[in-house]
Amino acid sequence: MNHDKDIIIVGCGAGGGTAAQFARKTDRKTSITVFEKGKYPQYSKCGLPYAISGRIPNVMDLIEFSEDWFKKSRIDLLLEATVEKIDPAKKIVYARKNNKIIEKSYGSLIICTGAKPSIPPIKNLFIGDKLVDGVFTLRTIDDVESLIPYVKKGRQVVIVGAGLIGMEMADNLHECGMRVTIVEALQNILPNNLDEDMSKTVLEGLPDDISVFTNHLMTSVEHDSGRIKKVIIKNNETGEEKTINADLLIISTGIKPETKLAEDIGCELGVTGRIKVNNKSETSIKNIYAVGDCTEFVDFITKKPVPVGLGSIVVRQGIAAGINAAGGEYSLPQGVLQTATSDFFGMEIGTVGPTPASMRNQRYISGKFQGLSLPEYYPGGKPITIKVFADEKNGKILGAQAVGDKAAQRINTFACAILADMNVETLRKLETAYAPPVAPTLDVVTLVCDIVSMKIKRKRQ
Amino acid sequence: MNHDKDIIIVGCGAGGGTAAQFARKTDRKTSITVFEKGKYPQYSKCGLPYAISGRIPNVMDLIEFSEDWFKKSRIDLLLEATVEKIDPAKKIVYARKNNKIIEKSYGSLIICTGAKPSIPPIKNLFIGDKLVDGVFTLRTIDDVESLIPYVKKGRQVVIVGAGLIGMEMADNLHECGMRVTIVEALQNILPNNLDEDMSKTVLEGLPDDISVFTNHLMTSVEHDSGRIKKVIIKNNETGEEKTINADLLIISTGIKPETKLAEDIGCELGVTGRIKVNNKSETSIKNIYAVGDCTEFVDFITKKPVPVGLGSIVVRQGIAAGINAAGGEYSLPQGVLQTATSDFFGMEIGTVGPTPASMRNQRYISGKFQGLSLPEYYPGGKPITIKVFADEKNGKILGAQAVGDKAAQRINTFACAILADMNVETLRKLETAYAPPVAPTLDVVTLVCDIVSMKIKRKRQ
Repeated sequence: MNHDKDIIIVGCGAGGGTAAQFARKTDRKTSITVFEKGKYPQYSKCGLPYAISGRIPNVMDLIEFSEDWFKKSRIDLLLEATVEKIDPAKKIVYARKNNKIIEKSYGSLIICTGAKPSIPPIKNLFIGDKLVDGVFTLRTIDDVESLIPYVKKGRQVVIVGAGLIGMEMADNLHECGMRVTIVEALQNILPNNLDEDMSKTVLEGLPDDISVFTNHLMTSVEHDSGRIKKVIIKNNETGEEKTINADLLIISTGIKPETKLAEDIGCELGVTGRIKVNNKSETSIKNIYAVGDCTEFVDFITKKPVPVGLGSIVVRQGIAAGINAAGGEYSLPQGVLQTATSDFFGMEIGTVGPTPASMRNQRYISGKFQGLSLPEYYPGGKPITIKVFADEKNGKILGAQAVGDKAAQRINTFACAILADMNVETLRKLETAYAPPVAPTLDVVTLVCDIVSMKIKRKRQ
Repeated sequence: MNHDKDIIIVGCGAGGGTAAQFARKTDRKTSITVFEKGKYPQYSKCGLPYAISGRIPNVMDLIEFSEDWFKKSRIDLLLEATVEKIDPAKKIVYARKNNKIIEKSYGSLIICTGAKPSIPPIKNLFIGDKLVDGVFTLRTIDDVESLIPYVKKGRQVVIVGAGLIGMEMADNLHECGMRVTIVEALQNILPNNLDEDMSKTVLEGLPDDISVFTNHLMTSVEHDSGRIKKVIIKNNETGEEKTINADLLIISTGIKPETKLAEDIGCELGVTGRIKVNNKSETSIKNIYAVGDCTEFVDFITKKPVPVGLGSIVVRQGIAAGINAAGGEYSLPQGVLQTATSDFFGMEIGTVGPTPASMRNQRYISGKFQGLSLPEYYPGGKPITIKVFADEKNGKILGAQAVGDKAAQRINTFACAILADMNVETLRKLETAYAPPVAPTLDVVTLVCDIVSMKIKRKRQ
């Protein structure tokens, strides 16, 4: 039997599930098999924090495509099936389910093995190979279900890592009435998203009863009969130590990609230790694609490799891999814009472009503007602050960071401008939509470009 | 004395006021004089409907730049001063204030004479040269002040003209508890903004107690001792007549540009009967600029002349005229995008691109998508419908219409794409910002482009 057109997908996260869906849309007939080691079909990992507070009423609501959906789409979804080996020469995948080995041939393979939480070296965090009782990471539906009994009003939670997920956890646990402390090793909260000044704007907007320790490492934890009691943190500069009571500890310090299967068959890994893919989601091996947290691609601006982590990028890679694996033709832009957003404690954040750290290698001019979402005469306008980065030579827009009203949709306009290689001189003249109850005649989107444009002109003189 | 650098501005609406402000920013010293025939310095005409309902608490809040601001900026603002004649050869303006003639020389002149309401031929609308008591147009602060005593809960108002301003009036008067009837001569509400299907979406979203008669002409009114009592409307197709009680009648059927001063000195008018200006806001006469409702410019897509009417465009023309008149250098894009928005009855509308009527001359493919503002699993997502128009040959984006959540900011992204000559194939791959409480992984902004892109491909096959 000819398996040239058969598609196997390893992993049914957002990447694998999307790839399956688009492969099916592209080829109505071909065999598609998805192996997923977990218990659930495609669900939203990004939604997990909101299932803790009940903003998403039931964690099972996060399942975006049910087993039934896969069945109706004639996609063979095998749950609790772990792929153990791939033979790229014979084009066979070996998976274990119910302690039996399943052997399956493929024409195209899509690797979506994802990642697991990265846990920093904190003393006493483990008893044997298990995390101390009350210590959690948040990657799965099971994590949420195990964590929920620890969430009680008045209890104290410490969150390590003030990235987007850490801040979302802080918001949701605060919503549950917990006393929240956030510990971040770097100088600022959201260090991978915002410059120092923008990060301060967010910090100032947090409720007073949230404690934040930036520039602090968590060095160890103390437990009582195996249950978490305290955490010890250390100031990176002064070395001063501090003990904080903790009934619950959330570790939100990033991820480690799952690349072993891909490495074993010789897929090239990149400088970030992830599977290298191109804008068609192809790996270095013909007919093998990879998607999601286990991959790296290049940044649109710097053209340097970056880890893929955002759900928005993963889904787009999934579309490309699914269509291409099924014989279609789909190319993504030549790099990721890294458009991101979140909303916590009533603040909307939006960013696009290289991370602050990698932006530092660009020769850029930045400018910032704070304005209102409505004309001054119309009551109820909300603050919106946008910072824009442009190439100091030609004014080309490199990135933008926004905090405030409709930050995400405003950032999408910058994302569009970046995708179009637009410069600030052009964008500042964009005719934005205006009406008193909706937006001012000149939106912060263009006013911030005025600032940057004038700075660039001044520099040239 | 040399007046080569002196600037005179005729009219202190949004265009004139903005021009004065930017002229001053460009040249800190030169003499700037603004003649305004009305009583007030620059105020927002677009804000007038909201001052009726009290959403804007005081109509005087609409004054964006006070007399004091002009004084501090060393701009001579002469209120209740009517320019009667311009001598372009001698470069002198003659204005009348307090029955005295003021003679003033200029180096550059900016004409911002605006427009007055256009009143359709409705029988019995006038007694002598005055509108029947209870009949109003809405162009000025004085109009709002005269109208407010007629606004009473339970009374009946009829609005002629279902354009953006008519709909905004309907919303604000409904907010005051009035019984609202809207009469529109064309087939659909918002005929200059939305296609029929999109217009229907808005119509369906109106409260049940708003009566709408489209395809109806108002033929006459009846009054009692000079006070409006009834209006008679006629179905354009069937000729059937209908009488509606009216305690208040609002006429919102467009404007007539005030071009006499410009015509008298030989400024070229265009096909729309307005002063022709280029992307520097220059008229056909050297050193004479024009801005605002009295002008026409070209549409960015069709390159055909269009009347300038939107506040957002007027302000941008004012910036260009002010800077250029003061010796700076400022060019707008080669045409107006006509980005527009409004929000009434809880619905946000956004549009960009040529009006539906002028779009009909383009060879386009359109597509529509209705989705949610949030991922399906996250409660509270609001509907958003976007329709996109693209060139059937090359997929270049020509325009977009949106109804629903954050329509204006979503339309700004399309405006940016149009300004960049982007096609749907590129925009569909835009990496939009995603987070569960903010936006879905694939925003309607890109999903609608998928639809159009596929339609174009299908057509090519």
